[in-house]
Amino acid sequence: MGQKRALAGFHAVTARLRNAPASVEAFYYDATRRDARMQQLLARAQQAGVRPIAADAARLQALVGATRHQGVVALCSQTAQALSLEEVLDRVGPGTLLLLLDGITDPRNLGACLRTAEAAGVDAVVLPRDRSASLSSEALKAASGAIESVGLIAVVNLARAMDQIRQAGVQIVGADHAAPLDLYAIDLRGPLAWALGAEGHGLRRLTRERCDLLACIPLAGHVESLNVSVATGICLFEARRQRLAVTP
Amino acid sequence: MGQKRALAGFHAVTARLRNAPASVEAFYYDATRRDARMQQLLARAQQAGVRPIAADAARLQALVGATRHQGVVALCSQTAQALSLEEVLDRVGPGTLLLLLDGITDPRNLGACLRTAEAAGVDAVVLPRDRSASLSSEALKAASGAIESVGLIAVVNLARAMDQIRQAGVQIVGADHAAPLDLYAIDLRGPLAWALGAEGHGLRRLTRERCDLLACIPLAGHVESLNVSVATGICLFEARRQRLAVTP
Repeated sequence: MGQKRALAGFHAVTARLRNAPASVEAFYYDATRRDARMQQLLARAQQAGVRPIAADAARLQALVGATRHQGVVALCSQTAQALSLEEVLDRVGPGTLLLLLDGITDPRNLGACLRTAEAAGVDAVVLPRDRSASLSSEALKAASGAIESVGLIAVVNLARAMDQIRQAGVQIVGADHAAPLDLYAIDLRGPLAWALGAEGHGLRRLTRERCDLLACIPLAGHVESLNVSVATGICLFEARRQRLAVTP
Repeated sequence: MGQKRALAGFHAVTARLRNAPASVEAFYYDATRRDARMQQLLARAQQAGVRPIAADAARLQALVGATRHQGVVALCSQTAQALSLEEVLDRVGPGTLLLLLDGITDPRNLGACLRTAEAAGVDAVVLPRDRSASLSSEALKAASGAIESVGLIAVVNLARAMDQIRQAGVQIVGADHAAPLDLYAIDLRGPLAWALGAEGHGLRRLTRERCDLLACIPLAGHVESLNVSVATGICLFEARRQRLAVTP
């Protein structure tokens, strides 16, 4: 059998067919759905040389557990880029942008963070192996195909990885709602790693202490925090804004 | 009985106990959970004059349907601010910030958008009554208490509401991934409404045509779009950044 992943939903399956069709070992679809979106996906599969297999709702659900599948499920071999931290740090340059996620345990949040990181042009996402949500079908669906193109590095010890990242000349900025500085007051150009903590708890002490700088997102309302994927988007795209604003 | 809402999870229940304890008609908790977080919440309920009622898992689940409740559920009377569009438009000033959501059908995304809007200091969120997710317990949980403090205006006809908003002197900027301008190139100070469309589809044509300006978020990767709550965060906080940068 080998290691297989069940991808569910149009976004994730479309992205996989586009980016790595050879890794799609089986593609199941709900034959009672005959709308345009399904027709397009079936045509794409055919183009990619993947034969669609009609399946009923029970079979689709059995493949993906509780995840909503929209009538499409692909069983795929693993293709996630097996990046090592060393490889990434060997290539550090002015445009380097990393994301460190300290213990995101909700799979949908993890998937949304990966999708956001990919869209912001992040080189790699670093997360602690034992303190993160697994890349379940729910996480992969929320990632919307991003997992195919963003480098993911699961490390045994996040604190040690942060030491290596800093030693490679990358500034680490931690998002902390209690920080006196806000992110707009910080120069986010040059090699940078944003560190974000888990829902509700924020960065752990050991992680916080290894940041070069802490910054808050200046909130206006009564809510004490943002969803972690929203906070990730605001932090990463502020870095992107500052980089785009630099005239060469 | 009256109209009641079941709030689930620590965030949402804590926010309600803090902001509107009188609206909590019953507070159920899982007595087998004895951790610090639960102890704190029980203490807060007691302070607020709300008596906690021990309940088993089946009863808690029955109150909230499929929503994850973390062992805490509060049955509350409605307190959502019954704002009218007219009231909001009567008070338009340089700091006015509105969010228009055009057909967000996923309750968890809707809740995350409300939480983000509240954190960005939005005056009111306007959405079409018939084309939006309902404020289910899942949406309220994702909103994490924001529903208590952000004004929510459900309109019958979004296009007509946009005409009124523009006539009141508010600039409407629509997020559109095909727009040639990016949001960082636009002046977002002064009375502003951001319009964001549904997951996957973006703004409907009628909504897009009623915007003064369209702007994209400049994406770097292969993913074609962001989660709508993440996009909302990036758009609203760019407006916030520009406003904070203005020296009085």
